Amino acid sequence: MSEAKCITRTRVRYGETDKMGVAYHAHYLNWFEMGRSDFCRANGKSFAIWESEGVLLPVVEAHCRYKSPLYYEDEIDIETTVTKLTKVSVVFSNRIFHADTGRIAAEGYTKHAFTSADGKLLRDGNPLYEWLSNMFM
Amino acid sequence: MSEAKCITRTRVRYGETDKMGVAYHAHYLNWFEMGRSDFCRANGKSFAIWESEGVLLPVVEAHCRYKSPLYYEDEIDIETTVTKLTKVSVVFSNRIFHADTGRIAAEGYTKHAFTSADGKLLRDGNPLYEWLSNMFM
Amino acid sequence: MSEAKCITRTRVRYGETDKMGVAYHAHYLNWFEMGRSDFCRANGKSFAIWESEGVLLPVVEAHCRYKSPLYYEDEIDIETTVTKLTKVSVVFSNRIFHADTGRIAAEGYTKHAFTSADGKLLRDGNPLYEWLSNMFM
Amino acid sequence: MSEAKCITRTRVRYGETDKMGVAYHAHYLNWFEMGRSDFCRANGKSFAIWESEGVLLPVVEAHCRYKSPLYYEDEIDIETTVTKLTKVSVVFSNRIFHADTGRIAAEGYTKHAFTSADGKLLRDGNPLYEWLSNMFM
Repeated sequence: MSEAKCITRTRVRYGETDKMGVAYHAHYLNWFEMGRSDFCRANGKSFAIWESEGVLLPVVEAHCRYKSPLYYEDEIDIETTVTKLTKVSVVFSNRIFHADTGRIAAEGYTKHAFTSADGKLLRDGNPLYEWLSNMFM
Repeated sequence: MSEAKCITRTRVRYGETDKMGVAYHAHYLNWFEMGRSDFCRANGKSFAIWESEGVLLPVVEAHCRYKSPLYYEDEIDIETTVTKLTKVSVVFSNRIFHADTGRIAAEGYTKHAFTSADGKLLRDGNPLYEWLSNMFM
Repeated sequence: MSEAKCITRTRVRYGETDKMGVAYHAHYLNWFEMGRSDFCRANGKSFAIWESEGVLLPVVEAHCRYKSPLYYEDEIDIETTVTKLTKVSVVFSNRIFHADTGRIAAEGYTKHAFTSADGKLLRDGNPLYEWLSNMFM
Repeated sequence: MSEAKCITRTRVRYGETDKMGVAYHAHYLNWFEMGRSDFCRANGKSFAIWESEGVLLPVVEAHCRYKSPLYYEDEIDIETTVTKLTKVSVVFSNRIFHADTGRIAAEGYTKHAFTSADGKLLRDGNPLYEWLSNMFM
């Protein structure tokens, strides 16, 4: 059965900190990606497989609000859900929590187009769209 | 005299590409940062100096729209402007252009709080706020 | 009781791949760092604590041999051991294995100086040196 | 005429610093890559072109010695030379200098195999090998 919400646990790496002593803001987008990958895997078909079958998900928009800083070695929980789905695009929404307290650290989303391996927009639906679609019915 | 707009030229590094063969979306936030740093430097006072004098600019929000892909070795122009300024926060807006054609590749912004070196919000104005403020008067 | 060898499992992120379709070589140094951090944590005192107590471990040398490529979503096991220890420096050695087959993917090491928080070399021993030293007696 | 030595100038980005306040060691490998790319471009044929013509240069070994720390916004000069060339592999050597003082910050090398686009080792020479070979005669 499908999981509509996925939680991925990881830790802040040393190289992800910056001279302010906190996690650098760009790395949160990498954590969002870990969440999306885990979401697909947890629902039975990894994104690597989807790509090998010819459906890509290039990011067309990304957004993040940073709410409380993260430090080196902090454990975080990345929550991933699908919040919008059309035949041509999908929005994954993420929240990042301090694993120890459950306090929110950041929230955001990425919007993706469905494209073929050569970058052409898939306008009339595609197997990954169908798969995500069935997950929410 | 102040420059209200700053252009920074750089190139897409090999390690900034991903398995789709294009620049990975998270790296655009690094390019935005290069633009902000260059903006301050071009206007006479580097951000490293501002930090050494006790004003930090942690990112509280980031947004990017990706409009056309960038490839390894592509030259890009990062345009940086200040689009909103209050006593407690500043918004830097960025556009990234393909240097050869002038076509837009991405656009977005980052919103920053003014804080002290120990992370406390500076609520009543600060020297960096004054400096940016004078730039637009 | 101390663990002389530590295994850390992680996965290759999308943003860690490059246009060749494999994990980019610089990221292996991040995995080595994850291994070192885990090594300290697994032995009872995290490196974040050591740093907060005033002992830093800046890298003075790094080396890696790449033996077989890693792909997006591959699970890897990072093995970390201490292979040399003097009063002024420590060498952590790492091997990275494909988690599914146990085949080696890469091996290398990082050499670190013991320094104080202000970057001064600690020449006459220090608590982290003592701790590592006791681990191997 | 060929340039046997290439100098590439860049600046340390904010996101390349870590909580110690200095450039994180893994990023030096990105700077080495910038140097290699620049080396090929400066000699008349960019590495992107070489790749599009079917010769890849996966890294099989990397090494770096860190000699003095680099800070945010520091300008650096990346020196790149070819120090070993055989029919199956090439070694690029790099030194990184503080641009203001000329003092050395780091030095190292990367060793690369010549492979085809599908990752097969090119054992009997190849056009990139010939090109590099002619450069030193």
